[in-house]
Amino acid sequence: LESKLPGSKTSIFSVMSKMAHEYDAINLSQGFPNFETDRKLKELVTKAMRDGHNQYPPDAGVLELREMISQKFNDLYGRYYKPETEITITSGATEALYNSITAFVQKGEEVIVLKPAYDSYEPTIQLAGGIPVQIQLKSSDYKVDWEEVASAITNRTRMIIINTPHNPTGTILSEEDMLRLQDLLKDTNIILLSDEVYQHLIFDEKLHQSASRFPELSTRCIICGSFGKTFHNTGWKTGYCVAPEELMKEIRKIHELTTFSVNHPMQRAYAEYLKQPEHYLDLAGFYQEKRDTFLELISGSKFRSTPSIGTYFQLLDFSEITTEKDTDFAERLVKEHQLAAIPVSVFNIDEKDHSQLRFCFAKTNETLEKAAAILCSL
Amino acid sequence: LESKLPGSKTSIFSVMSKMAHEYDAINLSQGFPNFETDRKLKELVTKAMRDGHNQYPPDAGVLELREMISQKFNDLYGRYYKPETEITITSGATEALYNSITAFVQKGEEVIVLKPAYDSYEPTIQLAGGIPVQIQLKSSDYKVDWEEVASAITNRTRMIIINTPHNPTGTILSEEDMLRLQDLLKDTNIILLSDEVYQHLIFDEKLHQSASRFPELSTRCIICGSFGKTFHNTGWKTGYCVAPEELMKEIRKIHELTTFSVNHPMQRAYAEYLKQPEHYLDLAGFYQEKRDTFLELISGSKFRSTPSIGTYFQLLDFSEITTEKDTDFAERLVKEHQLAAIPVSVFNIDEKDHSQLRFCFAKTNETLEKAAAILCSL
Ligand SMILES: CSCCC(=O)C(=O)O
Ligand SMILES: CSCCC(=O)C(=O)O
Repeated sequence: LESKLPGSKTSIFSVMSKMAHEYDAINLSQGFPNFETDRKLKELVTKAMRDGHNQYPPDAGVLELREMISQKFNDLYGRYYKPETEITITSGATEALYNSITAFVQKGEEVIVLKPAYDSYEPTIQLAGGIPVQIQLKSSDYKVDWEEVASAITNRTRMIIINTPHNPTGTILSEEDMLRLQDLLKDTNIILLSDEVYQHLIFDEKLHQSASRFPELSTRCIICGSFGKTFHNTGWKTGYCVAPEELMKEIRKIHELTTFSVNHPMQRAYAEYLKQPEHYLDLAGFYQEKRDTFLELISGSKFRSTPSIGTYFQLLDFSEITTEKDTDFAERLVKEHQLAAIPVSVFNIDEKDHSQLRFCFAKTNETLEKAAAILCSL
Repeated sequence: LESKLPGSKTSIFSVMSKMAHEYDAINLSQGFPNFETDRKLKELVTKAMRDGHNQYPPDAGVLELREMISQKFNDLYGRYYKPETEITITSGATEALYNSITAFVQKGEEVIVLKPAYDSYEPTIQLAGGIPVQIQLKSSDYKVDWEEVASAITNRTRMIIINTPHNPTGTILSEEDMLRLQDLLKDTNIILLSDEVYQHLIFDEKLHQSASRFPELSTRCIICGSFGKTFHNTGWKTGYCVAPEELMKEIRKIHELTTFSVNHPMQRAYAEYLKQPEHYLDLAGFYQEKRDTFLELISGSKFRSTPSIGTYFQLLDFSEITTEKDTDFAERLVKEHQLAAIPVSVFNIDEKDHSQLRFCFAKTNETLEKAAAILCSL
């Protein structure tokens, strides 16, 4: 029996969450909140079921939900996507990423990936027969070296994947970054895949530079989003992607094969809930407070950090505590101190970046306090 | 922009359901019930949300649900699957089929498909770089010509896909069929993919010959199942696959990339609901009555039929009414008579079988009566 992904291991998120469970540890590893999603949203799901929305929705998703997404992109980023043909609801952003890569990457084609990178991109590229071309973010500040990106482009480059706000580093791409990228991709056939699942989680008054804001970029761009990350219900597994019709047509061919359609009651609930934009607009302030609380609580510890500007993750450098490799330290942290975090090197080239752990601060203040007490004791 | 699936059209199910909607027609096309799923099951989803099961479940699925599936296979078919390593919850049977094919079919490898076949198999095979090898079921009774299958096997055959009960024909594989298949596959490395989504919908006291009943077959076999088809909630998009650990390990690698995990509240609800086996054991009687009602209602019409033995579909031969091609007749039926059905030729080689339509009888008696009135008027 030959494996098509011989190098593929169980996702670090599953591994760490499982260990957290086994060792009864505080789980700041996998990215999900430990507080409850809005009761109103649960009631909307119950209502959708009661109203009889329990059979197949349209394969591209409930139209009302696609209309709300369209309106949001129009209002926030000034780009109009046609609900009928340019928006598809997916089984989480994971499926959106998978379909996007699989629809376009052919055998032998190259995909530029900025490292550290979310761990599903590269195996998906490989499965499609493509070749991930890894570019390391600058080690000082995780900025993109666009010169390096430029020189990595070949006539086999089919796609480049960006992620802003960026998981795991908590950085964002600036307007200059996006204009530079737009410049680079001009006159090429390269497709841009923009993973924007944390688009509403940006702090310190910074603006989300969605790829959809940039007209020339957005003609060849797919953007992925997530309701689970936005509305505190990662277990409802609903995300989406938007793209120009020409691209979306191909993505939907894959979507019909991978899942066909997505949970109907949840889609109805989100469609209704999105009618109040404050449900996502208030999010940045909420999570900024979480970030500040967490950083304040660990300010007396030996961990060093640059405050996260987006996502609900905070990197902490532990080099003053131990010279252990991050994977070893993470293991010891969960086993001996009952605190789970994600070692950053697993997202990196040659498992670089050995002295950082990623902590998810989408947790109750009580949990953050307990976690901080452990971190301060090290 | 090069398409990876240039021949791929929108699924006939989406096309017909959309037309049914546009022409305000009775929709007996896409396979879903028009009556409600059990209120108890909806309440269990509401309870799961209230109990806080709103974040990522384990990627392989909620363990309690996998345990219930394991127990069911053990009780009904005498085969024990390990919940931890041999069962995975998927976003509908569609994802289970996709993952299974994608995990094993390599470029240039052949997959034997019995035609007419469900329309996701072949594009999925092609996307993986594989070659569908089509074998036509016998035109008289839709039986498998195992001699033909035997002679289609080459050293490049990686997989054979069976589907019992069979969509769209409503036939089932017999014990002799399965033994013959077991014989054929002995001493080969061919993987059997058995689509058993209608396993609980078998009529006239017939037994479901699950591939899991046959010890030698089941060592190289993946079985796909569906809760949506079983519990009248196709829009909840929850299915599963079972397979020996060695195979499941590879399937899960794909599952982590396509969807990662499946809607958590629905999984909890099914786990609880499955504790009462009558919830699926009573299904055969319920749908047999539907079939009988439908056939009785159209007994005065010019349509000819052999009663369906499984699934919730009934084929009707319309050659006494018109010599039109089934696709044309289906179109006219929805536009002029407000009744939607599926033309069978789209599932077939060279669009053979031009004089049959597939009708879904998972409908209220009122709907069946209205549909039958139209059919009798033709
Ligand atoms: C799909 S599990 C991964 C969750 C996540 O986005 C993260 O922890 O980075
Ligand atoms: C996923 S839509 C197809 C529904 C179905 O199984 C059928 O109509 O055959």
